[in-house]
Amino acid sequence: MKGYISLMRPLNAIMASLGTIIGGIIARESLSALYFYRLYIAMATVFLVLMAGNVLNDYFDADVDRINHPKRPIPSGQISRASARVLAIVLFATAVVVSVFTFNLIQVIIAIIAILLLITYEWKAKALGLTGNIIISLLVGLIFVYGSLSIRLSYLVLILSVMAFLANLAREIVKDVEDVRGDVNRVTLPKKIGKGLSLVASAVFIVIAVSLSPIPYLFFGWKIFYVFVVAISDILFIASVFFSFHDQTVGQNLIKVAMIFGLIAFLVGSSI
Amino acid sequence: MKGYISLMRPLNAIMASLGTIIGGIIARESLSALYFYRLYIAMATVFLVLMAGNVLNDYFDADVDRINHPKRPIPSGQISRASARVLAIVLFATAVVVSVFTFNLIQVIIAIIAILLLITYEWKAKALGLTGNIIISLLVGLIFVYGSLSIRLSYLVLILSVMAFLANLAREIVKDVEDVRGDVNRVTLPKKIGKGLSLVASAVFIVIAVSLSPIPYLFFGWKIFYVFVVAISDILFIASVFFSFHDQTVGQNLIKVAMIFGLIAFLVGSSI
Repeated sequence: MKGYISLMRPLNAIMASLGTIIGGIIARESLSALYFYRLYIAMATVFLVLMAGNVLNDYFDADVDRINHPKRPIPSGQISRASARVLAIVLFATAVVVSVFTFNLIQVIIAIIAILLLITYEWKAKALGLTGNIIISLLVGLIFVYGSLSIRLSYLVLILSVMAFLANLAREIVKDVEDVRGDVNRVTLPKKIGKGLSLVASAVFIVIAVSLSPIPYLFFGWKIFYVFVVAISDILFIASVFFSFHDQTVGQNLIKVAMIFGLIAFLVGSSI
Repeated sequence: MKGYISLMRPLNAIMASLGTIIGGIIARESLSALYFYRLYIAMATVFLVLMAGNVLNDYFDADVDRINHPKRPIPSGQISRASARVLAIVLFATAVVVSVFTFNLIQVIIAIIAILLLITYEWKAKALGLTGNIIISLLVGLIFVYGSLSIRLSYLVLILSVMAFLANLAREIVKDVEDVRGDVNRVTLPKKIGKGLSLVASAVFIVIAVSLSPIPYLFFGWKIFYVFVVAISDILFIASVFFSFHDQTVGQNLIKVAMIFGLIAFLVGSSI
C-alpha cells in the first residue's frame, strides 16, 4: 500500500486539483448545489489524472531512477513495472468515467485530451526539452479552465490560465538551466541555445505574464484592491528574473511563490 | 552573497509574510491606501523576523548540521557563527524599526514579543518538545492576527488563528513521531508519552480545529458557499488523522495541504 501511495503521489495531485476549485470560484456567478457537484467531480477528475501521470512518470523513469532515486517503488523492487502500468491505465480509465458525471461533454473531451497530452509528455515529449516544457505548462493552464467550465468559460479565468502557462514555462526553462549538467538524455532549451539566451527567453515570458496582470482591473471592473495584492506577485516575478541570472534554484522557487501570490490576488480580486 | 541568502531563507519568509496579507484581507472593511501601507509594513516586519529566525536556526544548529546538513553556510565554513549572529541581530533590529512605521503601538509590541518568543524557541524551547511545538504554533497563529491588526482585530481572523494554531500543533507532533528515531537531543512528546498517545493528542487537536470551521457560517453570516469550500479542507484534515496512524510523512504533509485549502476557504468566504 505504501508503495502504491508513493507511486501515485496523492499530495501533489491534491495541490493540482486545488486549481480546478480556484478556476471554478473565479468563474462563479450565481451558485447552486449543482455547480458544486460539477466542480467536485471536475476536481476528482484532475486528481485522478494527476495520480495516473505520477505513476506513468515512475514507469518511464524506472531506468534513470535506479541511479537517481533508488528507493522509489519501482527501482527498489517493491512494485513491478507491469503493475505500475496497470495502475496508470486503471487511474486514467477511472478519471474518464468520473468526468462523465460532470454531464458536460466539453469537460469529458478536455479530460481525454489532457490524458493524451500527459501520456505523450511522459512517453516522448519530456526528452524533447522545450516541447515538453510547453506541453506541461499547457496542462497547468488547463487546470483552471477545467474548473471554470463547471460553471461557464470565463475570460478572466482564461487570462489567469495564460499567465499560469507563461510563468510555468519560464520556471521550467529556469529549472532546465539549473539542471543543465545533470541532464544527459534530454535535449533541453539551454543545451540548444545556451544558458544566457534561455534565461532571456524565460524573462520575456515573465514580463508578458506581469504585463497581463492589470487586465482584470483595466477591463473587467475589478477594484483597485486587486492591484495592491497582485503588485506583490508582480514584484516577486520581476525579482525572480534578476535572481534567475545569478542563482537558478532561488529564481525558480521565487517564480513558484510569485505564482501562489498571483492565485491569491485572483481569488481576492474576483470576490470583491 | 549566496551564503547569506541561504542563511536567511527568503522564500520561506515570503510564504510566512503571505499570512499577514491574508489576515488583513479577511479583516478588511472599507479599504484605503493607508490600510495597504500599514499591511505592507506589517508584511515586511514578518518577513524580516522570519529571516532573522532562519539565521538564528542555523546559528544554534551549527553543531548538529555538521553531520545532518554539512553544506549549509555555517558548517561548510562559508560564514562564521559570529557573522551569522550579527546578521540575526541586525535583521531583528531592522524588523522592530520597520514595525514602528505601522504607527500602531500594538503591532510594535507584538513584533517584539514574537521576536522574544522566536529567540526563546531557537535557544532553548526547541529541545523541550511540546513546549517548543506550542511556541512555534503560537507564532504561526499570530501571523494572521498581525495582518488583521493593520485594520482592526477581527473575531473571524482570531478563529482562523486558533485553527491554524491547532493544525500546526497537530502537525508538529506528527512530525515528532515521524522523526522519533533521529531525534537524539530533543525530549519530544512521543518520547515522553509514546507514539500512540501522541498521535491521539494530535487527532484531538485536528478534530477541534475541524469542529470550529462552521463558525463563520453559523455565527457571522458567511454564505453556504464557504461551507462547500471549507468541507474540502475538513475532509483532508480528517483523512490526515487516519493516515498519520499509518504513515506520518503522508499524514503531516496532508495536514499542510489541508491548511492551504482552509486558508483559501477563509479568503473566499470572507469575500462573498
